[in-house]
Amino acid sequence: MSVEKALNNSSAFLNVDLGAIINNYETLAGQAQTAACAAVVKANAYGLGMTEIAQAIFHNTRCTTFFVANLVEAVNLRTTLPNAVIYVFNGLFSDQIETYKEYKIRPILNDLSQVLLWSGSPEPCAMHFDTGINRLGLSEHEAEKFLNSRHNLNLELMISHLIRSEEQDHKTNNIQLGKFRKIVEALGDVPASLANSGGIFLGHEYHFDLVRPGIMLYGGNPGLKSLPAGLKPTFEIKARILQIRDVLPGMTVGYNATWTAEEPSRVALMNVGYADGTLKVSDRKSHVSINGHLAPVIGKVSMDMIAVNISASEFDKVKVSDFAEILGPNITLEMASEVSTLGQYELLTGIGHRYHRWYGKNNKLGAKI
Amino acid sequence: MSVEKALNNSSAFLNVDLGAIINNYETLAGQAQTAACAAVVKANAYGLGMTEIAQAIFHNTRCTTFFVANLVEAVNLRTTLPNAVIYVFNGLFSDQIETYKEYKIRPILNDLSQVLLWSGSPEPCAMHFDTGINRLGLSEHEAEKFLNSRHNLNLELMISHLIRSEEQDHKTNNIQLGKFRKIVEALGDVPASLANSGGIFLGHEYHFDLVRPGIMLYGGNPGLKSLPAGLKPTFEIKARILQIRDVLPGMTVGYNATWTAEEPSRVALMNVGYADGTLKVSDRKSHVSINGHLAPVIGKVSMDMIAVNISASEFDKVKVSDFAEILGPNITLEMASEVSTLGQYELLTGIGHRYHRWYGKNNKLGAKI
Repeated sequence: MSVEKALNNSSAFLNVDLGAIINNYETLAGQAQTAACAAVVKANAYGLGMTEIAQAIFHNTRCTTFFVANLVEAVNLRTTLPNAVIYVFNGLFSDQIETYKEYKIRPILNDLSQVLLWSGSPEPCAMHFDTGINRLGLSEHEAEKFLNSRHNLNLELMISHLIRSEEQDHKTNNIQLGKFRKIVEALGDVPASLANSGGIFLGHEYHFDLVRPGIMLYGGNPGLKSLPAGLKPTFEIKARILQIRDVLPGMTVGYNATWTAEEPSRVALMNVGYADGTLKVSDRKSHVSINGHLAPVIGKVSMDMIAVNISASEFDKVKVSDFAEILGPNITLEMASEVSTLGQYELLTGIGHRYHRWYGKNNKLGAKI
Repeated sequence: MSVEKALNNSSAFLNVDLGAIINNYETLAGQAQTAACAAVVKANAYGLGMTEIAQAIFHNTRCTTFFVANLVEAVNLRTTLPNAVIYVFNGLFSDQIETYKEYKIRPILNDLSQVLLWSGSPEPCAMHFDTGINRLGLSEHEAEKFLNSRHNLNLELMISHLIRSEEQDHKTNNIQLGKFRKIVEALGDVPASLANSGGIFLGHEYHFDLVRPGIMLYGGNPGLKSLPAGLKPTFEIKARILQIRDVLPGMTVGYNATWTAEEPSRVALMNVGYADGTLKVSDRKSHVSINGHLAPVIGKVSMDMIAVNISASEFDKVKVSDFAEILGPNITLEMASEVSTLGQYELLTGIGHRYHRWYGKNNKLGAKI
């Protein structure tokens, strides 16, 4: 056995199905109808790996436009995709102007001082108008000033951001739509973008010229009643059994003895813990999946380890070195977030860096190992 | 301004004070009196950076022994420290034997099948005896078999792990101590190790030959009533203000409009979010520190951003591009965990990978920027 293979086997692993991500992109692009569809790959593509995922999307779909949070992410992405359009949400600072230009990255200007910094540049940029979320972007007052001023920008895009797009019937969506429309009309020919993942399912009037899904590309649900048809899980995390032990009635498992055996029990210790990010459930009822059966996590999650109760007869053949699914098609983000203090977004972006990562276009998620 | 500097400035940053970590090591080694003191650097040194921290400890203290969780971490550490003693908690699998030997890494054998795999090897190893936590290690029954058998091992260490060392008066500690002592006596000359960070403060009888602190090296508290004297904070996370906006009464901030301004408010948007790991507080009362004053985080934490209320007069001079402390000497792990669903261990190991990281031996944590 080679050193490389031995090392790979000694970690838990993260298996990303690039084919499923491409499928999700196409599903969302189809839903957006005549609008173009970008890809939001900030925060290392929501924890799953920006380089591999951006390449897969760029080379296998019509997607040309990517959004990241900051300039470091943008420069990394530029190295990966020399010809993509890259926008940075965080905006522009005076010490960054040259870097933006050198790497042909487009700033999203968030206030009038940033407009001044880019003014006169022939390179493209975007404007961000706040329509109520009060994070980044021009306030209504600033927007008025901007619309009434002579600005010397090569404006290729205008954006705003929805507050609660996942609550499809909430009046806020319609109010924001109205505010954004007014600015779109005032700015004339500039392409416009409002819809995040949830916004794509609010109807075509929310699509404008470009939609920009994030979490749904990765198979996560921003809070809709159910994940829309056609969207697939895109990854799985599998951990290995380090040891199996027989625990007698009255014995406890783990730190602070929070689980006590009521009957003779068979317990598997697995090589994944809260340092790997996916299991920050703080002693609530979570499960792993072994050969298609759910097995309960017991006791406190440790930094590098969990304990799983495999006393049930369906686990009789389970042995040391076997793998269990921690998160994936059988233990979905939805199931995991229900028993966690963290939501789907946090579970995704919190995926740790100790996994051995596999990327493939036909990874057969959920296949038995 | 160079590209490198522009990029550095565009991220939030993590500043690790290696001098403080060395100080904490010396404090713990002093407490251990005649026992030697190892360093637990698994999970990327609890999120802070294994390479830099292990080097600093090895080259500036008498520490020669390091503990990691798995073989990948061990091989990485071997590259950094060619002459250190490295133990792996996760144990030994048949496909790993050659790699352990090639890199002169010592397995901690957790069950009798692992003993068989290493038996006959002249290379050193350790034995793990379970004394009640029921994670890894030989059960009492297996221990008996092991002690009565002729094993052909070069045993350099025997360890066990405390269930609740931070509860100093709990009877469990004494029970585990008694069980471990029996094994120590039966095994004769083999050096022994029981105490983690909390165990170091249970008294000298818990120290045996080697103590193995983890979280306290990094300034964290495993749950003692207060952090013992002499231990210092070892890092700080600082984020930059991206934009400052005036928010009128009745306006809301952030996703799902969970915060509403009751009076005219000044709000700073900062470049750190839950993807950076440290702020998974899910809308509870957390703060950042700006120039020594606490400012409340408002609204929902976003993936890449937080909003901070800087309406109070002490923030009058605060401007875009200024930094705030997110975690460090002023916003301690203790304060952060109190308002979080996550504990100090989880906050530490959950520190994200998007920070620009600085390592220095005199970093002057908390200095104004």
